[in-house]
Amino acid sequence: MSNKLYHGAAYYPELWNEEAIENDINLMIEAGINVIRMGEFAWSIIEKEEGKIDVSFFNSMINKLSNHGIETIMCTPTPTPPIWLTHNHPERMYVDADGRVMGHGSRQHVCTNNAYFRERAAIITEEIAKSVGNLPGVIGWQIDNEFKCHVSECMCTTCKTLWHEWLEKRYGTIDELNEAWGTHIWSQHYHQFDQVPQPHPAPFLHNSSLKTMYQLFSYEKIAEFSDEQAAIIRKHSQAPITHNSTTFFHVDNERLYENLDFASFDTYAEQNNFASYLFNCDLWRNFKKGKDFWIMETSPSYSASLENYAVPHPNGYLKAEAVAAYALGAEAFCYWLWRQQRTGCEQPHGSVISAWGKPTVGFENVMEVEKARKEIESVILSTKPIQAEVAITYSDIAKAFIKTEPHKGLDYRSLMIDYYEKILSIGYHRDLIPEQANLNGYKLLFTPFVHYLSPNYISQAEKFVEEGGIWIVGPLSGGRTINHTIHTDAALGELDQLAGVETLFTYPMDGTESIGEFMETSATLGIWSSVFQPKEGKSVGIIKNGLSAGKAFLTENRRGKGKIVMLGSLPIGEQGDFLLKKCFNHYAEEANVTLKTDVSKGTIVAPRQGNGYLVWIIVNMDGMGGTFTLPYDGIDELSNEYISNRECEIEPFQYKIIRFTND
Amino acid sequence: MSNKLYHGAAYYPELWNEEAIENDINLMIEAGINVIRMGEFAWSIIEKEEGKIDVSFFNSMINKLSNHGIETIMCTPTPTPPIWLTHNHPERMYVDADGRVMGHGSRQHVCTNNAYFRERAAIITEEIAKSVGNLPGVIGWQIDNEFKCHVSECMCTTCKTLWHEWLEKRYGTIDELNEAWGTHIWSQHYHQFDQVPQPHPAPFLHNSSLKTMYQLFSYEKIAEFSDEQAAIIRKHSQAPITHNSTTFFHVDNERLYENLDFASFDTYAEQNNFASYLFNCDLWRNFKKGKDFWIMETSPSYSASLENYAVPHPNGYLKAEAVAAYALGAEAFCYWLWRQQRTGCEQPHGSVISAWGKPTVGFENVMEVEKARKEIESVILSTKPIQAEVAITYSDIAKAFIKTEPHKGLDYRSLMIDYYEKILSIGYHRDLIPEQANLNGYKLLFTPFVHYLSPNYISQAEKFVEEGGIWIVGPLSGGRTINHTIHTDAALGELDQLAGVETLFTYPMDGTESIGEFMETSATLGIWSSVFQPKEGKSVGIIKNGLSAGKAFLTENRRGKGKIVMLGSLPIGEQGDFLLKKCFNHYAEEANVTLKTDVSKGTIVAPRQGNGYLVWIIVNMDGMGGTFTLPYDGIDELSNEYISNRECEIEPFQYKIIRFTND
Amino acid sequence: MSNKLYHGAAYYPELWNEEAIENDINLMIEAGINVIRMGEFAWSIIEKEEGKIDVSFFNSMINKLSNHGIETIMCTPTPTPPIWLTHNHPERMYVDADGRVMGHGSRQHVCTNNAYFRERAAIITEEIAKSVGNLPGVIGWQIDNEFKCHVSECMCTTCKTLWHEWLEKRYGTIDELNEAWGTHIWSQHYHQFDQVPQPHPAPFLHNSSLKTMYQLFSYEKIAEFSDEQAAIIRKHSQAPITHNSTTFFHVDNERLYENLDFASFDTYAEQNNFASYLFNCDLWRNFKKGKDFWIMETSPSYSASLENYAVPHPNGYLKAEAVAAYALGAEAFCYWLWRQQRTGCEQPHGSVISAWGKPTVGFENVMEVEKARKEIESVILSTKPIQAEVAITYSDIAKAFIKTEPHKGLDYRSLMIDYYEKILSIGYHRDLIPEQANLNGYKLLFTPFVHYLSPNYISQAEKFVEEGGIWIVGPLSGGRTINHTIHTDAALGELDQLAGVETLFTYPMDGTESIGEFMETSATLGIWSSVFQPKEGKSVGIIKNGLSAGKAFLTENRRGKGKIVMLGSLPIGEQGDFLLKKCFNHYAEEANVTLKTDVSKGTIVAPRQGNGYLVWIIVNMDGMGGTFTLPYDGIDELSNEYISNRECEIEPFQYKIIRFTND
Repeated sequence: MSNKLYHGAAYYPELWNEEAIENDINLMIEAGINVIRMGEFAWSIIEKEEGKIDVSFFNSMINKLSNHGIETIMCTPTPTPPIWLTHNHPERMYVDADGRVMGHGSRQHVCTNNAYFRERAAIITEEIAKSVGNLPGVIGWQIDNEFKCHVSECMCTTCKTLWHEWLEKRYGTIDELNEAWGTHIWSQHYHQFDQVPQPHPAPFLHNSSLKTMYQLFSYEKIAEFSDEQAAIIRKHSQAPITHNSTTFFHVDNERLYENLDFASFDTYAEQNNFASYLFNCDLWRNFKKGKDFWIMETSPSYSASLENYAVPHPNGYLKAEAVAAYALGAEAFCYWLWRQQRTGCEQPHGSVISAWGKPTVGFENVMEVEKARKEIESVILSTKPIQAEVAITYSDIAKAFIKTEPHKGLDYRSLMIDYYEKILSIGYHRDLIPEQANLNGYKLLFTPFVHYLSPNYISQAEKFVEEGGIWIVGPLSGGRTINHTIHTDAALGELDQLAGVETLFTYPMDGTESIGEFMETSATLGIWSSVFQPKEGKSVGIIKNGLSAGKAFLTENRRGKGKIVMLGSLPIGEQGDFLLKKCFNHYAEEANVTLKTDVSKGTIVAPRQGNGYLVWIIVNMDGMGGTFTLPYDGIDELSNEYISNRECEIEPFQYKIIRFTND
Repeated sequence: MSNKLYHGAAYYPELWNEEAIENDINLMIEAGINVIRMGEFAWSIIEKEEGKIDVSFFNSMINKLSNHGIETIMCTPTPTPPIWLTHNHPERMYVDADGRVMGHGSRQHVCTNNAYFRERAAIITEEIAKSVGNLPGVIGWQIDNEFKCHVSECMCTTCKTLWHEWLEKRYGTIDELNEAWGTHIWSQHYHQFDQVPQPHPAPFLHNSSLKTMYQLFSYEKIAEFSDEQAAIIRKHSQAPITHNSTTFFHVDNERLYENLDFASFDTYAEQNNFASYLFNCDLWRNFKKGKDFWIMETSPSYSASLENYAVPHPNGYLKAEAVAAYALGAEAFCYWLWRQQRTGCEQPHGSVISAWGKPTVGFENVMEVEKARKEIESVILSTKPIQAEVAITYSDIAKAFIKTEPHKGLDYRSLMIDYYEKILSIGYHRDLIPEQANLNGYKLLFTPFVHYLSPNYISQAEKFVEEGGIWIVGPLSGGRTINHTIHTDAALGELDQLAGVETLFTYPMDGTESIGEFMETSATLGIWSSVFQPKEGKSVGIIKNGLSAGKAFLTENRRGKGKIVMLGSLPIGEQGDFLLKKCFNHYAEEANVTLKTDVSKGTIVAPRQGNGYLVWIIVNMDGMGGTFTLPYDGIDELSNEYISNRECEIEPFQYKIIRFTND
Repeated sequence: MSNKLYHGAAYYPELWNEEAIENDINLMIEAGINVIRMGEFAWSIIEKEEGKIDVSFFNSMINKLSNHGIETIMCTPTPTPPIWLTHNHPERMYVDADGRVMGHGSRQHVCTNNAYFRERAAIITEEIAKSVGNLPGVIGWQIDNEFKCHVSECMCTTCKTLWHEWLEKRYGTIDELNEAWGTHIWSQHYHQFDQVPQPHPAPFLHNSSLKTMYQLFSYEKIAEFSDEQAAIIRKHSQAPITHNSTTFFHVDNERLYENLDFASFDTYAEQNNFASYLFNCDLWRNFKKGKDFWIMETSPSYSASLENYAVPHPNGYLKAEAVAAYALGAEAFCYWLWRQQRTGCEQPHGSVISAWGKPTVGFENVMEVEKARKEIESVILSTKPIQAEVAITYSDIAKAFIKTEPHKGLDYRSLMIDYYEKILSIGYHRDLIPEQANLNGYKLLFTPFVHYLSPNYISQAEKFVEEGGIWIVGPLSGGRTINHTIHTDAALGELDQLAGVETLFTYPMDGTESIGEFMETSATLGIWSSVFQPKEGKSVGIIKNGLSAGKAFLTENRRGKGKIVMLGSLPIGEQGDFLLKKCFNHYAEEANVTLKTDVSKGTIVAPRQGNGYLVWIIVNMDGMGGTFTLPYDGIDELSNEYISNRECEIEPFQYKIIRFTND
């Protein structure tokens, strides 16, 4: 892609007449829209009747936009197969966990593993790629749209067959599977792979191995579809390829992006949940490390459907979002959607332009974004995000484990955002990194909520520690094997030894009145917990009361130049927050983490590195205004003022750019 | 029907032996019951085996009751087809939205569109009509019972075929439908009518057009069944025909009553919800304007089934209900049920007589009703409800639109009753009128929560305004087309121009801290809202704070001799109530509404017109007693006292009849 | 069984290797485990391939345990049929109320009425019995495991046929059924038994008779399966047979134990719900009167699965539980489970030993239990529970009636435990007795929440009264017939006459502001209530306010030497508790109940009879400590101190044994 910041929108010109399109393009120019995403639901337009494929509408449209200086992300239209593919073909449709077969009329209604679907998807994608793949207006591709957002694991008979093949490939022999899953429990034992059920209705819970493996199978299959589609496009186009995902969907994002060219996400967080928004930025920056990410969809004001709506953003927040995203590594900030839907089920969704062609309540905010984009573009393009010193591992495989075993309503995403928010609010510059990420450059690594720690992950972390890093593991990490079973050597497997502890007990602490104490701070302990007896390691957090009084919930163990810190439980409530932040600060200091900013809650600093200088982009996200303290003298790039190192103020939703004179 | 007030009950003599029936009739006479409704579930009694029809039991029963001075509403027994019609015939059964096929054993288990059901229903109805249609005891008919109370839209294959025919009739060509519904969205596009799905399970929401049209199709089909049955009865009986409906059921009441002779409803509102009870009276009076309505079912004390029960009425309330109903236009006040069920699933339901043949806890209250009926009968029969000046449009089509698009849990019925309660509690005499009602005689018209305003409705309302009426439109009115899509000319289509405004934005105001201000009163604005920029019209209510500060949520526009008032949002909470009532009073005054009574909350006045004089029937509904102020001197018809124009007191659940000396 | 107290655990050696088993046995010996329950899920181990049965693993295991002094309860493995029985045989699987067919992979997935299942179950049980039935280590049998814990009534076609046969056997002719169920209601009327539906999906509720009878049919069928299995075992083994049940499962425990040799239950109540724990002890003691019961499963600390967990027991509580159980008539106190599951869906469940072979957080508590067992064993073995004077009827048939007719969310179990807790907390020694229990020896009988009172029950109770007992009937008792219909002679049938009252009305009192007054105590009345007019009886509790002011909710009627007390309503809230306890005390005193102890709330006394002396075992259950008052001087058997009759203290979770010097 070109060397600029993109400001874009999703657009459905196939649903509007020429006059509306003309009006739209004029308003796009007015609003500073320089990129449009198109085509992801347009299968019935391009191939109205089976085999009669005509991409000319989009070919012209791309050129028309290009002539107005607007570039295009072209999509493949596979999330919405047309009626000729679905009608009278229940065997091609998605089947849910209750065995209900989906019908035509919404989206993702077809099983993406169905062979005929795959055949037709390959054909239409190839035709589209051939037709527009080399148009100068096409700067990128999006495959399909929000994989697995409305559906999760399909239970159709195609999937049944593929499941059996997948199991055979994974386990080799049925005996191996029986042993791995411990299937003599409840007489589940299988003689052949084709006997292994999908997790269909049962009187009580399925085997954890089966539940987790079926999720991983589904993860792999949707990624394979993505790979297959990407390969087809690459035959006819040089433009980079992405997929618009989120942490909500039932995909393994790390695996998904493996064979894609850049990462992008969709987000509809309300303003009061801005930590979730920043979480996405800090994570997506790291799926394709070194390449800018895209925000492919966000609302100019609020998300909605026939059956729900969100609170609209307060004025000014959209601009704060956009600046924060660009500062944290986004190349593009794009709306869903440009023009309000006239029909369907998302008419109430916020847009830039109304169905009757006029600016919506969000339009002025879009104009503010464009103004900001212009103001910050040169700074952004001449710098890049500084390597963080603090990393938190994010894993969609961990998400699958917790979906299988939620203990008592746990949700991986919520757990992670809460955890992340603590680190964010202390003021650390941070990365959320996928499981297989390189740990070079980090000083402090957090690994919470990862039931299964792979040998590779552990050895990477061990090396990180030996070279001087501090690794904070837990809560809920390490207690499950690759097959979602329990270790038989030690509670946390090899981690026990590495951490220099014996994990005595694991049990739920909620309701047991257990109190954790760390450096004179106390807090109630909750969720499923591990209780430690230090061996080579030492206890740094002691449990008072409850069933394990005197034992440790927090230990540290020196290894090489670094330390492994085991966090066995979750301190909860306001006091728990306080204790955790104290703990994180303590180890950050010990790890010599320097990228921490003294900033008031609700305001963030995104530090960026120029050629020989440092830039801070400061954004107020909570709409309350706040303060930040400059560590050295700097120049306010927007006002060109010189500012000495002191506490400065920032207005609600304001952003500032400070260039430090001495780096 | 004869010139009297009816006091009746539903009765199932087919379930009891002769001795019990004798006992029942004696107690009916004691309680003053003068009409009985029978037969609605008796199909298996009349046609125990297929084709062997014998109506003699009911024929005799009608005569026996008649001999005791008790008249009969005879029912057709179609809600409960017998086992010979259902057993081993899943294709005749109702299918729910999840695809579950109903079995025998409850009621409404058969699809009313099934051809064989229709055939058998026609036969049994004809035989019943032949047998009893001319008996002197039969004063009326009820078709079936509570259409669509336990079921809504059927998903069976019969319905699928009829749906396709209905669509073809409505749209002519599939291209027309595709265009109207905008089906290229999400590649829904159809080539033939027989591809259009029923709204079966799908990964996400169906197209709004499909969802709403399927409801309208279902509305039409059940009304056609009613029409068909009525035509059969009319071949053999002169007695007028009704159906007992409510606003809960999945029917279009206005359409349903089109081909029936009088309107009736069932109500089981608890005493603390008496506004809902009055709502029904004010609405049902207008389905067959000029004809008295019937309360066909209400509990003498409480409703119940095996799985639920309501709070029993406090003593005295039943009488208040009956007097209010008669005063507001009811000809009959009938209980469900006379004698407690011995078997089935409604044994716990309140009744007049217990299963063991004794008076229930409700019996004394029934006796009070009879006493009151006698006391007020001559006044009621010599007067009729005065034409209201204030009308509120009620529309089951609007209900269907909101069922498709509830935004965030909105329920049409609840919205309407809340809105109505404001007008009721101010003291206006009011009508709830169906969409196609004649607007003559009204001065103030309210049209809230009608997403789609038909051209006919708009032109009627426009005429009403030009002749001097004030039309208060909104909230939530006018923003959708006939196909449940968005207008493309203006936010509210032609309404914008009529109202002299430009509707700038529509969006959800909840959580945006928007404040509405009208005549120095402020209140928080909520729900999905329209924001206006007056053109010819003028702003009378301004928005403070939020995203549209300075714009209008309330405008007025003079047109002819009247005004169109646009209410774009819903002021909420206690302050919102206050603001709305202030607004309603303001425009009522401007419209010269005079039928307003100064009455304390919880007490109502029903004004009736005699030949040259006015009568007020005053009823305390909340059991707290209260006051009312006489505008002129009058005579208390019950005590024969002369009362000067002053504030008077009323006891808990008491009623009074005041005849004004000077009209 | 032998003359000792058992301390046991469930064990799954088939899932572990030899080394783990050796380790387990050593730890069992350390923990004092003297009995192991095995085999209930091991079908796939014993009969891996259809027809190839090999019991040798368990045969050896039993001998190995026996060699270490550990005895065995052997189980039949029928709750988990293996894959060769289920794969590709949907017709053998359990079908739920929504028609969903279960698949392999959990437990109870097969319909226990399926003929092929029965055939294979008979074969495997016979082979197991043959192989191990006479081993010296086998001291007892458990059939299957927790019948109907995850499933309730099956809707498969096998059950359909059996249902029709069962109905024919019960009613003889279809006319009899039609009359009994009153099927002309809603035209349900059947011509043949094979038309009677299972209670499948319907638009509204099914006939109460059908719903209740289908439950009784299901009760009977599972008991027949148990009978059949027991008979097979008895051909090859002298060891007594049980089944581990609870009050949660969908079984008729009284019927189930009819053909079994001893009763046992599973319990996972949290500590704060200890009344529920004691409820089970007081009930299971009476299913096989005169024989000690077993606690077959309880957690050493907490129950859990992948999707839930309970609060772990505080330290000390497990010992209190064990002592209370032994004191109240248990012969065994057994854990589920010995060693934490490595796989499956219950890995998080509390155990004695972890999956990695180490003591869990519960282990020390298990050691305390063993210490206590040894301390009390001789006292327990030389005494037995004293015959209680107070009895409360427990009925799973009543549970079925309330499941059909829950009024407003009523749950029989919760109602009963609340009621029981009042009697417990007053300090009465009490029995919970099945419906057909002999009433000899009791002085005060409570019969709450039994909708249908059988003629046999009434005549037993009548005799009990005539001989001097006081019978407190209600609330909710007596108002339904054997077919779950309403009486037609009197509200409560023959009970009215017996109680010397006319039950005037029955209706829900919630929300009616009815107040009950008894001996100067007042409380709000709630739930479905009966209102009495005394005839020969007299009113002792009067209703104030509400709809039946001045009538009685509580009456008594002398009959022979005793009294029938009718309790028509439920006094609720704290005042209701107070009133009920006053009432219970009043009649206990009148009935000359002497087995009442003056003990503080949270502490219990279990009185036991030795040969010429009395022993009290006192246990603090709430962990708060408390007091108890000795009525005479005694000896503290643990300290050997002499204690004069006075108030004594007891520590949290402490137990004491007092032997009274003069009995």
